[in-house]
This record gives sequence, structure tokens and C-alpha cells, in this order.
Amino acid sequence: MDSLALHTDKYEINMMYAHWLNRTHQRKAVFDVYIRKLPFDNGYAVFAGLKRIVDYLQQLSFSDEEIAYLAAEEHYDPAFLDYLRQLRFTGDLWSVKEGEIVFAGEPWMRIEAPAGEAHLIETALLNMMNYQTLVATKAARIRQAAGNDTLLEFGSRRAQEVDAAIWGTRAAYLAGFDATSNLKAAMMFGIPSAGTHAHAWVQMHDSELDAFQRFAAALPEQTTLLVDTYDTLRSGIPNAIETAKRLAERGKRLKAIRLDSGDLAYLSIRAREMLDAAGLTDVKIAASSDLDELTIIHLKTQGARIDQWGVGTRLITCEGQPSLGGVYKLAAREREDGELEPALKISSNPAKISTPGVKNVYRIISEDTGKAIADYVCLAEEGDLSEAQELKLFNPEHPYLSRKVRRFRAVPLLTKVIEQGRLTCELPSLAESRAYHLERKGEFWPEYMRTLNPEVYHVHLSERLWNLKRSLIERYSFGN
Amino acid sequence: MDSLALHTDKYEINMMYAHWLNRTHQRKAVFDVYIRKLPFDNGYAVFAGLKRIVDYLQQLSFSDEEIAYLAAEEHYDPAFLDYLRQLRFTGDLWSVKEGEIVFAGEPWMRIEAPAGEAHLIETALLNMMNYQTLVATKAARIRQAAGNDTLLEFGSRRAQEVDAAIWGTRAAYLAGFDATSNLKAAMMFGIPSAGTHAHAWVQMHDSELDAFQRFAAALPEQTTLLVDTYDTLRSGIPNAIETAKRLAERGKRLKAIRLDSGDLAYLSIRAREMLDAAGLTDVKIAASSDLDELTIIHLKTQGARIDQWGVGTRLITCEGQPSLGGVYKLAAREREDGELEPALKISSNPAKISTPGVKNVYRIISEDTGKAIADYVCLAEEGDLSEAQELKLFNPEHPYLSRKVRRFRAVPLLTKVIEQGRLTCELPSLAESRAYHLERKGEFWPEYMRTLNPEVYHVHLSERLWNLKRSLIERYSFGN
Repeated sequence: MDSLALHTDKYEINMMYAHWLNRTHQRKAVFDVYIRKLPFDNGYAVFAGLKRIVDYLQQLSFSDEEIAYLAAEEHYDPAFLDYLRQLRFTGDLWSVKEGEIVFAGEPWMRIEAPAGEAHLIETALLNMMNYQTLVATKAARIRQAAGNDTLLEFGSRRAQEVDAAIWGTRAAYLAGFDATSNLKAAMMFGIPSAGTHAHAWVQMHDSELDAFQRFAAALPEQTTLLVDTYDTLRSGIPNAIETAKRLAERGKRLKAIRLDSGDLAYLSIRAREMLDAAGLTDVKIAASSDLDELTIIHLKTQGARIDQWGVGTRLITCEGQPSLGGVYKLAAREREDGELEPALKISSNPAKISTPGVKNVYRIISEDTGKAIADYVCLAEEGDLSEAQELKLFNPEHPYLSRKVRRFRAVPLLTKVIEQGRLTCELPSLAESRAYHLERKGEFWPEYMRTLNPEVYHVHLSERLWNLKRSLIERYSFGN
Repeated sequence: MDSLALHTDKYEINMMYAHWLNRTHQRKAVFDVYIRKLPFDNGYAVFAGLKRIVDYLQQLSFSDEEIAYLAAEEHYDPAFLDYLRQLRFTGDLWSVKEGEIVFAGEPWMRIEAPAGEAHLIETALLNMMNYQTLVATKAARIRQAAGNDTLLEFGSRRAQEVDAAIWGTRAAYLAGFDATSNLKAAMMFGIPSAGTHAHAWVQMHDSELDAFQRFAAALPEQTTLLVDTYDTLRSGIPNAIETAKRLAERGKRLKAIRLDSGDLAYLSIRAREMLDAAGLTDVKIAASSDLDELTIIHLKTQGARIDQWGVGTRLITCEGQPSLGGVYKLAAREREDGELEPALKISSNPAKISTPGVKNVYRIISEDTGKAIADYVCLAEEGDLSEAQELKLFNPEHPYLSRKVRRFRAVPLLTKVIEQGRLTCELPSLAESRAYHLERKGEFWPEYMRTLNPEVYHVHLSERLWNLKRSLIERYSFGN
């Protein structure tokens, strides 16, 4: 991998420099990564990007070319460049697992590192986490809409450059897609690949039937024919049926036809009738054409007979909300005496006030139903909640409301992935993370999972954490 | 660069295989790249991505690892894999220049290549062209809104993965941005870099004033202070003024303050008053916070006193339309006898019917005004129009309307960039392309350039091209 050390905002390097001059660059800083609002008005998000981030942190190191660029670009002290030349990531990374169901207002990652390093990594870490989590969340919505139908990722040509095609595909597979058309992603991550042919294949031949026959002859085990180059019902499907018959003579089956334009509900119903009437009841119908969770739900409501959904543009670019607002905020800093002190960011917008302190997150699961009740954020110094018998769920937005829960499991969501720069354990494979995602989704009532107007799942703060936040807000606020 | 040969859709490889089995993979195919609709309801697009595409084509070659993957993945004939192993791009690429003002319905690139190669490159070429052109167009809109103010690209943390941050920055600079915060992009492309500090810098210190002083001491030549960590008017700006005074004692000037939240119109007006009252009339005011062309226009209308605009998320993810619908359609194919035959793609949606044949595009510039009148697409076989004295502008959407123009220059937009796989000339530098963009923009009346409800600039087809298209539509249409 090309060095990504300079894939960072200039201000990170400038802050590192100012720290270095003040000899505070080795003081510990604790940063939280979280979002303030869920994307797509969804009820949850699907955390993704950790593998990429871990690789980035493990490989983080300035190349000679990068140091030379910085030397030419600014008047940094040469000794500062020596510090950069030696720099590796030596901090700790706590993170939820890839595929985890996560919510706004709770830390998904916690970085504890020397201030210089902690600043440097902000930009790349957010860049990677924001995009993969956004795509995974969109993909989970599409999976919700598609039920058990096959979902194919087809978005490469419209993705926002190469990495988005590759890593977006990975995130889509993590959250329930079945295959991708992008072969580089398929190779890198072991994702099943899928593909048909283009209109150009038909146009390259003297007739559509000729084009279909030749394509089927070349790939008899996996032929899907695109039927809308000239006229879906009058040319494409009849020629596909004829091709299927000739394949059958050789003991092969046509796998599917693909609709790519026109009214997909009407055309798929007619196509099903025509295929069935020709005895091709096992030939699947695939559809593509600017699909997303909404069009899939509506097509199903209209009785569309589509077995496989090719979803491209709107998934890979996250149509509707092309960015996730993940932030990286200081939660605590090391004082001169070596003690960690909670830090706060004030804002006139209450949603933008950060939650101070070194924190843990627990998922509270009912022992009776096996379902999640709420998430619970508390200070690390409150100790391990796994053994707690009773918990007070306290809602900071409505502090007069609270309730007690008993008979629960408190499952910690953050685990230490990197300790002093070293990986603490092997990360799960993509297939394992995909299975983990499905399993964790099963812990939520369907009300939280629906794509429209989901029930709000609450993230609670411990009373001690809330009191700390309130006292810091008072300390840092200017009198009105 | 990592091999991008498999950054392609599986169907491209499958079509290559079917061609190869039929011994048609070396037959020439001509593809056009174009869009059907301009993004953002804008009046034009800014073409970008050529440099990246040329590098991709020049380096295109399957690695051993990629061949091994394909061998394991599908039952391709081993001799086909040998063909892939030897494959290089040997075709011709015609393209408009980066920074060119372009429109829907005209070819921006034309690829003439052996069918196998022409299929293979579709996905990567569209992926790169679509994103960079989309960002360049968005950036041009923002430049239009910002007038001569300084525009800073700040989007990396919200970009759709690493490549989007890097190549999006390049596209933004091409279309008129002044600097970027992303140091990797700055280094790769020679773009000026810019940066301030984060809220965390302030939070890391015991007081905001202390944080400002230390930052200013570290970077006295380029200090921009972020003033909204606690309270913009009551803390941030007074502390920035105090810092400026202490800098002045050392003969240095505070460069700027940055507003990042709250009502930017009100705060910038108050900030200007406060700075001016302190004698700091030369200290600039920078602003950021989900800005785009619309917010910039509105803030200016409200009298905001902002000199520098930090534009991030909405630029780099192309909020409003995160994908450009660039397509790659067969325009002509080599017949068995070696002749090129025009090809057509029919659709029930008239806008989706392709324009057949090997084509050129000219910009028709009035000799009297120096301004562009229209673009004109004709068949390459119609010869060079540069010497034409009279032209009939014929509108296929309203075929009963036409007009004659005289006293014009017909400037060809497509030039041959790659011939039989080899670069025909050195590509311009990014700075040259940026200057070219500005120059070509000057050839358009402002009516076409405005961000809201622009006047429609027409792309005309030659009568001969239109007749060819009509006759092919008749040939390929099924009777109603």
C-alpha cells in the first residue's frame, strides 16, 4: 500500500508541530469517534471500516518523499521532521466490531494515544469509517427491503472513484449483499462475483439471438441474458427462451434473464408468464436500473416477480445522504501531573456538546426475551457492568424520566483491538463479520429495524457520566 | 500503483471471453462516453479525469495474482488467460481536454480499440470520469457563487474513501478552488495547502488564550485561529484579538480567524466590527460548516463578511447528486469485411437512444462576439469543419426549427490523446488545465453559467448524423 501518512488534513500536522514545540506531543489524549444523527432516518447504523483502519494504523509511517515534501512546504524545525520520520502509531484503539448494530451518541471507537499521533490519524480514520459505515447501513436497509432475495452489488462505474467501489463493495457484503460485479473487490475480500453482459454485446452481433447463443455457448454454466437492448417483450425474452431451449439440448440450463429498463413490475410479471409458459420455471429474473430500498419495496408491493436485484448507483454513492457525519472529539487529556482530565466541547447547538471522560458502552439485553433493551454509556472508572444486577436507565433529554432494569446481560461493545500500537488479536474474516452482523441484528425487535419511521432505540448515560457532563458544561459556559 | 486490471465488472471479462472464443476479440469497436443529463440542474459540466484515465490505460496489465484469481474463479480456457496475460491497451483514445466546458448528448471521449480491450476498460474509465467530472462541476458552481473569494477544499474526512478525497481535491482545484487541506493531494498534484487547528487543540490547553498563543508562536507566518470552541463572540474573538496584539509585538500579523458554527452571517459581521475596532482590518475571516454554493449565495446576500470559504462535505460527496450518469455506448463496430458499421442502442425512453457512428464535436464560436453559439456533433466522415463557411444548426428535438450561422470558428473538442496504445503528446499540468478551464469558461455568456435556471446551451447534430440515427431507429424498432 502507498503511504497514507499524508492522507491527513494540514491542520493535524500543524497541531503536531505546535505540540512538539511545546513538548506536549507525547501527552496522552483520549478521543471518541461517534455520530450525532443516524443516516437515512434509519433506526440504527452498521459499523464498518475497522479492518481498513487497523491496516492503516499498523502501516502508518512517513516515507522519505513525504518528509521531503513537508520540508519544502513549510518552515518546520528539522528536528520535528526527525520526530515524524520515527513516528509509528503507539497508542491503544478500542472499537466495536465490524457488523455491529450501533447508534448515535455512543462511542464506536476510542483512541488513547500520544497527542501528536492522535491528531495525525483523525482524518484518515474518519474518512474510512464514515464511508464504509454509511454503505453498510444503506446495504442493511436494502437487505431489509429485499427479504431473502439475492442482492448483487453493481455500482463500480458510478462509485466515487476506485477506493469507494472496492471498500463500498466490502461494506455492502458485510451488511448482507450476496455478490458483487467488481472483480478486484471479489478477489481482495473473497466475495462471490456475479455478472451478465452489456447491451454492447448484443449490438456487436448481427442479431440479438446470435449474440445470446454465442454468449450462452461461452458461459453455459452461468448464463444470464440482458433482454432490453431492442425490445424486452417482443425480442429479448423470446430470444432468451429460444437460447434456453438450445442450451437444454446440451443438458444446460439458462440461469436468468436481466431486465434493465422500462416498468420492472409489469415486465417481470410478463417475463415470468412467458418463461413459465415455455417450461422455464427455474429461470430466474434479475432486475437493475437505479434501484434502492424504496423502489424494491414498491416493486414488491406491485407484485413484481424479481428474484435477483442488481443494486448499483444508489447503494455505492449512498443516495439520499452521501456522507456520514462521524466526528472525532477529545474526551480526556493528560494533565502536566500525568492525571487524565475529562474534556468538553461546548456548542450553542446542544446536540453538538460532546460527552466527556473515558467511557465504555454496554448493550443491555433482556434475559427474558433475549432482545436488546437499550445501550448504556458510562465512565470506565465505574468498573465492569457485566455483573451488575440492577441498572437505572436515565434519559438525559428527559432527565425526569428514568427506569430500573433487572434480569439483563450487559454486553460490552468496545474491545481493545490495538494496544501500544500492536494488534491484540486477529481480526475476524469478512465472512465472520457478516455472520456476526446477522446474529446481532437478531437481538433487536423488528420495530427498530424497519426502513420507514423506526421506533427510537435509546442510548442512556449513567448518572455519574451525566453529572460530570453537566458540571463541565457549567464550568465552560459563559454566563447569559 | 496497484494493478487496476480487475477493477472492472465481471461481465466485461465474460464478454471478453465470449469474444475470444468466437475469435472476435480483435475486431475494432468504437465507444462513446457521454451523459444524458447535466448534474445539479447546472447549465454545463466541467470535464475531468483524463489524466487518471490515461495513467490507467498506460499501466493496464494483469498481474500474476489477478490471473491466478481468474483461473480459480471460473472455468476459463487457459489459453484465454494467456491472452489476458499479454494484454495491453492498444487502441486509440480521443478526448476533450480536462477543464473543458461540456454538455449532455455529445461525446466527451471516443475509444477505438479491439473489442476485448474496449470492454475491459469501461468500468474503470467511467468510474474515474464520472466522479472527477461531477466534483469539478460542483466546484465550478461553488466558484460561481463565491466570486473572487478564497475557496478552500476541506472535505477529506467525509469523502467516500481515500481516492475520493485525493482525486476529488484535484477536480476541485481544476475548477477554481484555491487550496486544499489534504496534504497527500497537495503533494501529488502541487496544489497549495491550507489549514487551521481543531477544537481539540483548544481543549488540550488550560485556557483558550493559552492555546491560541501557543499555536501562534509555533506558526507565526500562517496563523488562523478557530474561535468557536467555547463562545465565539465572548471568548473566541476577544482571545484571537489579544493573540494578534501579542503577535504584532513580534512584528507578525494574525492571518485569519475561522468561524465553524452558529449563524455565519451575523457572527462574521460582528467579527469584522470587533477586528476592525481593534485595528485588525487586514485579518481575514474564514468560515466553514456544511457550506455549498447555495449557502454561500445566501450568506453573501445577507451581508456576511467572509473572505475565505472552507467547503468540505457537500463538495467532496457532491451533495444533491452524488453520481454522474456517464455511459459508455457502442457507436460503431467492425464487420467481418473490416468495414466500420454504425451501432445503435434502442430504448423506450427517447433520451436513452444512443447516437450512432464515429463522430466529432465542434464548438461553434461567433467571430463577432467571441462567444460560443452552440456545440455541433457530426460524423467524422463529414470531414474537417474548421474551414466551413456556413452551418445549419438543426435541433433534433424540434426538427422543424433550424438556423444558419456564418462568421464563426468551429473548434474541434476531441483530440487524439492515445494512438495504438501510445500517448500522442504530454498532457498539460494541473495548473495548465486550471488556466484552460478559466479561459474556456470565458467563451460562454453568463446566462449559461448561472447556478439557478441557466439558459439552455444547445448541442446540435448534423443533418447527416440525424438522418443516420433516424434510419437506424427504424431498422431496429419493432412495429407498434
